[in-house]
Amino acid sequence: MSLIAVGTMAFDAIETPFGKVDQIVGGSATYVAYAASNFVKPVQQVSIIGYDFPKQEMEDLKSRGVQLDGVEIVPDKKSFFWSGRYHEDMNSRDTLITDLNVLADFKPKVPDNYQSAEFLMLGNLAPAVQISVIQQMKKRPKLIVMDTMNFWMEIAMPDLKKVLTMVDVLMVNDAEARQLTGQFSIVKAAKAILAMGPKYLIIKKGEHGALLFHEDNVFYAPALPLEEVFDPTGAGDTFAGGFMGYLAKTKDVSFENMKTAIITGSAMASFCVEKFGATRLKEITRNDIDARIQQFKQLVNFDIELV
Amino acid sequence: MSLIAVGTMAFDAIETPFGKVDQIVGGSATYVAYAASNFVKPVQQVSIIGYDFPKQEMEDLKSRGVQLDGVEIVPDKKSFFWSGRYHEDMNSRDTLITDLNVLADFKPKVPDNYQSAEFLMLGNLAPAVQISVIQQMKKRPKLIVMDTMNFWMEIAMPDLKKVLTMVDVLMVNDAEARQLTGQFSIVKAAKAILAMGPKYLIIKKGEHGALLFHEDNVFYAPALPLEEVFDPTGAGDTFAGGFMGYLAKTKDVSFENMKTAIITGSAMASFCVEKFGATRLKEITRNDIDARIQQFKQLVNFDIELV
Repeated sequence: MSLIAVGTMAFDAIETPFGKVDQIVGGSATYVAYAASNFVKPVQQVSIIGYDFPKQEMEDLKSRGVQLDGVEIVPDKKSFFWSGRYHEDMNSRDTLITDLNVLADFKPKVPDNYQSAEFLMLGNLAPAVQISVIQQMKKRPKLIVMDTMNFWMEIAMPDLKKVLTMVDVLMVNDAEARQLTGQFSIVKAAKAILAMGPKYLIIKKGEHGALLFHEDNVFYAPALPLEEVFDPTGAGDTFAGGFMGYLAKTKDVSFENMKTAIITGSAMASFCVEKFGATRLKEITRNDIDARIQQFKQLVNFDIELV
Repeated sequence: MSLIAVGTMAFDAIETPFGKVDQIVGGSATYVAYAASNFVKPVQQVSIIGYDFPKQEMEDLKSRGVQLDGVEIVPDKKSFFWSGRYHEDMNSRDTLITDLNVLADFKPKVPDNYQSAEFLMLGNLAPAVQISVIQQMKKRPKLIVMDTMNFWMEIAMPDLKKVLTMVDVLMVNDAEARQLTGQFSIVKAAKAILAMGPKYLIIKKGEHGALLFHEDNVFYAPALPLEEVFDPTGAGDTFAGGFMGYLAKTKDVSFENMKTAIITGSAMASFCVEKFGATRLKEITRNDIDARIQQFKQLVNFDIELV
């Protein structure tokens, strides 16, 4: 049961109130791979990198069961680079630099040996690029999940609306849900988005958790209250990786099972923010993950005794 | 098993994006009473009102098992009046008018027939007033819960710190927890507050739910995602009333039982915001409450299957 992860593999420079790194490996597909590979193998990457992407990182990913056949290497260009600075509250950040480099020409190609994948995660990319990946799949995957951002709502809304009709699950944050629909109420925004195509909607609210909407059902997954959020970079993609990894492992795409998948994604994200970049994701063991998921159970578990 | 509710009984003028009312009965003790009386009788009010407070409202409260022996009626003054306007996001509001009226001279007296109460809810009042009520209790109640606000942190911090050493549970919102401790991280703020005296801390986060802290334990209660929040006035006090009412009914002040009490408070608050003032609280039946609590169970319930 394989999972295709389409997205960036890149370098980030990050500054938080706790410190800074000038160059660390990042990118949405990287975070998805590090999170999902705890649950499912192979994770099949579709991405593009330059000559400067570390060989060691490629080896690390392969050793975790990540296939790189779909990663195009451009020999004369640099990898995508993003630089940002977080504010004290960690919920907002300023983008300092965005060097597209290889990403400007990204025309993803899905390799033949990926064609049997039943799970497809479309990271935040131009909607036209997301559509092209879906169209390359000879057999429609069992579950297609997409991320997006406000930028595409501003410059590519027609394409974005088209891809929304082609996927099963949309993952966005609360501000993006509001911008996409013009509805301030999150519940009204959710209804409007479900009417655009996706059968499931996940609204990420950072430290306030995440909501899953499906038909008239809603599930509220908390975030683990943390003493410090050291670096939020990649938390959303790590959440996506944990979510997809759990679903691909259990092969069950029901609403009930998606609840546990969201808790799994939240647990993975709670590790991600503990250190810069994907550092913490590379350290944790399966026991750490199981213990963290049990913490989430404790966090929300209560007995109802109607009195 | 009775519950004493100390706080205001007042008039509010409220403007929200959905409408306005020029005069509606409000006040923290009023909301606590309407919520708690679904679970426990009697609710014993300690408050102060002017000549203008409606007789009919007093009768309505009495018919729900609310005792008014501790409510001082000042024949030549008006009741406390607050007027406010909510912004579109309903999380912030401007106070337009605060007429203290009778509240300026509030020296609460606990009647003799309240002395056996085992539960004491201290609404948001001057800390010195809260202390005076605790000192009037001949036998310390089993559980003392207090609310407060940023205003008292600015003008009466020594008194506030004193009352914190005398209570079991503090209820504040996230901004107040940060202001009280100077800690931005909610988890760090919680630790600092628990070191000030209260054994339990509830941090209210509005549409993002509420957190319960006790020693090294934490519980995350979601808020019900609502299509519209019509009027948030009194939601915090209604939450407190549901919380206290459930605890007084079950006579169990353990961390585990407080979880369910918080869910009960959240359910009551979710009704409160559906109409102006306490209107909705007066309409709902026990069946409505039970059904809403079940909705909360559905909202957070998930199965863990470690895979």
